[in-house]
Amino acid sequence: MLKVPDHQVAGHTARHGKLGPLIDDSGRFYKPLQDDERGSKELAFYSSFSSNTSIPDHIHGFFPVFYGTQLLEASDGSGLRPHLVLQDLASDRLNPSIIDIKIGSRTWYPQASEDYVQRCMKKDKETTSLLLGFRISGLQIYGNSESGFWKPEKKHVQEFTLEDVRLVLRKFVSSNSPIGSNSFPDCCFAPSVYGGSAGILAQLLELKAWFEDQTIYHFNSCSVLMVYEKESMMKGKSSGAEIKLIDFAHVVEGRGVIDHNFLGGLCSFIKFVSEILTGPDEYSTEACSPDSEKKCISTDNEHPDHKSEFSDILSTN
Amino acid sequence: MLKVPDHQVAGHTARHGKLGPLIDDSGRFYKPLQDDERGSKELAFYSSFSSNTSIPDHIHGFFPVFYGTQLLEASDGSGLRPHLVLQDLASDRLNPSIIDIKIGSRTWYPQASEDYVQRCMKKDKETTSLLLGFRISGLQIYGNSESGFWKPEKKHVQEFTLEDVRLVLRKFVSSNSPIGSNSFPDCCFAPSVYGGSAGILAQLLELKAWFEDQTIYHFNSCSVLMVYEKESMMKGKSSGAEIKLIDFAHVVEGRGVIDHNFLGGLCSFIKFVSEILTGPDEYSTEACSPDSEKKCISTDNEHPDHKSEFSDILSTN
Repeated sequence: MLKVPDHQVAGHTARHGKLGPLIDDSGRFYKPLQDDERGSKELAFYSSFSSNTSIPDHIHGFFPVFYGTQLLEASDGSGLRPHLVLQDLASDRLNPSIIDIKIGSRTWYPQASEDYVQRCMKKDKETTSLLLGFRISGLQIYGNSESGFWKPEKKHVQEFTLEDVRLVLRKFVSSNSPIGSNSFPDCCFAPSVYGGSAGILAQLLELKAWFEDQTIYHFNSCSVLMVYEKESMMKGKSSGAEIKLIDFAHVVEGRGVIDHNFLGGLCSFIKFVSEILTGPDEYSTEACSPDSEKKCISTDNEHPDHKSEFSDILSTN
Repeated sequence: MLKVPDHQVAGHTARHGKLGPLIDDSGRFYKPLQDDERGSKELAFYSSFSSNTSIPDHIHGFFPVFYGTQLLEASDGSGLRPHLVLQDLASDRLNPSIIDIKIGSRTWYPQASEDYVQRCMKKDKETTSLLLGFRISGLQIYGNSESGFWKPEKKHVQEFTLEDVRLVLRKFVSSNSPIGSNSFPDCCFAPSVYGGSAGILAQLLELKAWFEDQTIYHFNSCSVLMVYEKESMMKGKSSGAEIKLIDFAHVVEGRGVIDHNFLGGLCSFIKFVSEILTGPDEYSTEACSPDSEKKCISTDNEHPDHKSEFSDILSTN
C-alpha cells in the first residue's frame, strides 16, 4: 500500500494530485524518474555508485540504499512510470527532526544549459548558497507532543539569511520550542546530536575525508540530510543522529578532479556545526536531563560580533 | 638603486615604461598602489593582517613581510606614487623555479561590480579555474645553465588545459628539460620538493588547516606562489621549497564564514600535488643523485584514464 511520505521537507511532493515520491510500509521510498535528463542521470548515478566496489563501506552508508527501479502508478494519476526504489530514510523514526542542506556555493555546472545556469545563479545569489557555500532547502523540527513540528514554508526557508541559518542549526538541537523567531535555543542536545564519536560532526568529518580524495563524481546541487529523534533522546535513548546524501539528478563525472565546490561548502557547514559545539555561546548541558526539557536554560545566545580590525581599517580607507 | 624584478611570473610588469613593481638589493619589493579601490584594499589587508595577533606565527610565515608604504618614482615615469613595501620573495635565490597558482573556482565575489563579475566569470570558464578550482597564472622553470628558464608567454599559460596543468606540475619537479610539450618529466625532485616534512605538500596542508577555521578574510583572486631552487638541490643543498600567498587587492571580510571558495580550490590543488607523490606514475628517486640529473629516467608518464563505470552507464542512457 503506497502513500505520501509524512516527513518530506524539500523537493516535489505527491500531494494534491501532483507528481512526487511515495513510500510503503516496508521501508522503501519510490521516487518518480523525471522524464528529462535528470531522471536518467539520477538512475545512472545510483547504478554506478551502488555497484562501485572501490567506494568504502562506511561511505556507502552515507547514501540511501538503492533497490533498482520499478514501474508504478504515478502519484499524479498519469499512469505507469518508472520509479527509483530507495531506502526510506524516515522509516521507523518517531517524529524525526530533519534539515535538508543543499551543499555548494554553485549549484550549476559547466556542462548545463545556459538557461539552467542562469536560474541557478540567481537562486544561489538570492539564498545563502553563494555566501555560505550551502543553503537550507527545507526542515522540520519537532517541538513536543503539543506543538508538533515547526515546518516553515518553502518561501520562508528560501529567504533565510546567514543569521537565520545560525539560529535554525541551534534550534535543531534545542529542547525549547523551535517556533518563533524570538526564541532562545538552549542547544541542550548539541553534545549528543552534533557531538560525540558517532554524532553528526563526526559523520560530516568522515564524509569530508572522502571528498578530499574522491575524483569520480561531482555532486552538483546535492543535499546532506540531517535527521535525529528528539523524543527518543528525551526518554534517554539514542538520538539516532544521522546524515545522508540525497538528490543526484545533477551528478557529473569528476574526471580525475575532486569536487572542490561540494567540499568547500561542506567545510563551511562543518564550521557552523562545530561552532555550536565549541563556540562562545554557552548552554548548560548539565541542566538537560532526558526527561525534563524545562530545565534547559539558555544563558547567552547573542552571536559574537565579527567586526574585525580589518573592517575598521577598510572603513577609514 | 631600484630595478625591475628578474623573476616576476605574473601580474603587471614595469618593463617598457609601464607601471609595475620594483625591487632593491636589500630584499624589498615595491608594489605600486593602484589608484582605484584595489590599491586601498590591498593596503587595508596588509595593515590588518600584519598587525593581527590572533593569527599564528606559522601562518604569518606564508605571507610576504609588510614594511609599510613609501612614496617612490613610479616605473612608468608618472612621478611620485605610494608603493607597498614588501619582502622580495625571489631575493637571495639562485635561478628560482616559480609557479603562480590563482586559487578558487570563482575569482569574483558578491560585492564586486557587475562588469567585474562578468569579466571574471568569462576568464574562470576559459581557464581551468571553474573546472579545477585553480589556474596557473604564470611560471618559470629552470632547466640548466645552457637552456636557462622555460617561461611560457601569458597567452599560452592562459590556455592551459587540465592535462597541461598536470604536466607543468610534474615538469616543475623534474630534472629533464621543461621545454617542449613532448618531454616526459621524470619527477626526480618530487620527493624533496613536494614531499617531506617541510616540503610544499606539508606547507599546503598547514595552510589548509588554517583555512578550515579562519573566518576573518575571504581571499578572492589571490595566488599561492611555489618556489624552489633546482641548482641548489643538484649541489646536494636544500631545495628552499616554499609557498607564499600573494595578491590581496580583492580580499574582503569573512564575516564569520570560512573562505569555502579558496579552501575548495586549495584542496583540489593539494590533490594534484599529492597525486604526483603517490600516483601510479613511477619515478626512480634512487637514480636521481644530486650531481647527475642525466640518471633520472622516466618510466611511465601516461596519466591513468579516468573513464569510470559511471561514464559507461551514462553513455548508455
